[in-house]
Amino acid sequence: MAISKNDLKEFSSLKRKSKRSELGLFLVEGIKNCEELLASDYEVEAVLATNNSLHAFPNAINISSKDAARISQLKSPSPVMAIAKIPKNENSLKESNFIYFLESTNDPGNLGTIIRTLDWFGINQLACSIDTVDVYNSKTVMASMGSVFRTNVVYMDFTQLQSQFENHKVIATTIDGNNIYEFKIPEKSIIVFGNESKGVSKEILKHSFDQITIPRFGKAESLNVSTSVAVITNELVKSTFKG
Amino acid sequence: MAISKNDLKEFSSLKRKSKRSELGLFLVEGIKNCEELLASDYEVEAVLATNNSLHAFPNAINISSKDAARISQLKSPSPVMAIAKIPKNENSLKESNFIYFLESTNDPGNLGTIIRTLDWFGINQLACSIDTVDVYNSKTVMASMGSVFRTNVVYMDFTQLQSQFENHKVIATTIDGNNIYEFKIPEKSIIVFGNESKGVSKEILKHSFDQITIPRFGKAESLNVSTSVAVITNELVKSTFKG
Repeated sequence: MAISKNDLKEFSSLKRKSKRSELGLFLVEGIKNCEELLASDYEVEAVLATNNSLHAFPNAINISSKDAARISQLKSPSPVMAIAKIPKNENSLKESNFIYFLESTNDPGNLGTIIRTLDWFGINQLACSIDTVDVYNSKTVMASMGSVFRTNVVYMDFTQLQSQFENHKVIATTIDGNNIYEFKIPEKSIIVFGNESKGVSKEILKHSFDQITIPRFGKAESLNVSTSVAVITNELVKSTFKG
Repeated sequence: MAISKNDLKEFSSLKRKSKRSELGLFLVEGIKNCEELLASDYEVEAVLATNNSLHAFPNAINISSKDAARISQLKSPSPVMAIAKIPKNENSLKESNFIYFLESTNDPGNLGTIIRTLDWFGINQLACSIDTVDVYNSKTVMASMGSVFRTNVVYMDFTQLQSQFENHKVIATTIDGNNIYEFKIPEKSIIVFGNESKGVSKEILKHSFDQITIPRFGKAESLNVSTSVAVITNELVKSTFKG
């Protein structure tokens, strides 16, 4: 089966968030991610494969390398891609002791890596500020290595999150807060991770119960946000593990 | 001061490792990274800035946005870039209880993030297999956020590393090793992190004293290598911190 001109145009346009919203579709790149998609509850619109990879995905639409390059967001396009439907159901956050909030995360790779890390540690929901990068950006999907299909990512205002979890304490991750090796994160907390260059905003710091920091022993000015999420989640999970 | 045609051509060629080796130069992108470069011991060949950023770097060569796009490796070129000299001195690893070895890390962003994380935790040397991505790739430099200028990265064969640290035990990070929450990493260890998709090679596993794993509570198949480095380094540093 060959790809129609119209589909090629449509699929190539999914690089833009506005087009993804309009069409209700997003692009999945890479064999591992496509396999995870096919094993998930997500509806699949199409699987696309270049000649060399068609044997592994016999129901795929056969596309040329040139078309793959047009659709892909990557410099070296993946030989297998899929187009999936953005779920339509209204998603909401479930009650949980620890709620993660990303404020203005810009980098799609960081968001994807965070989703992957949280999935590893068994956390399958995540709140993000409205201006956080789109979870259906193909680089986010790629970096999540399939975890995006198992994670409920909800975009909302911080005030809305606070009113849903009004008994939770707001804990901001900053550069000069309490040492996480010594500070016990309250059992019901909203943990806030700030923007890559600006950190947590004053607006949220004003509402925070306390601040936490991964202790620094060297000279780097800060940590990558996905690194901070990993280290802090490990600390949380470990304290639960050890009781 | 304007940029010469020859310099423009030369600087644009630094995307390729072969050219970096030939010219002994590498590209530094981003204001923060350029500031860190200027504060470091590295020799600077040139600083380049577009009109809007010239005020902050008055000694910079003024380049057009078009030239910036030609030199940059990024989709949105940084308004400030610098060209630095690759240090010529033979670098070697110092004696240390914990030696980190990256085996075949492919992604320049991962290598840079690892260097940044290690610098945060006070670790300023890193051994990499010969086929690991080049530390002077501009995406590595970018992701390191200046930490690359404080870190001694040595490319070498694993066997060579082993003979230098023959009393160290080889600890491989794998998917089904000892739980790091329960296993004490020996005081003198070479800790090996494998390739993004293949993990640690059989060759190195054969020489390993033991294997360690970050416990999994969810469904992600693996963690990003820079995430693993962060979590394991945090565990090591914390155990030292607590004595």
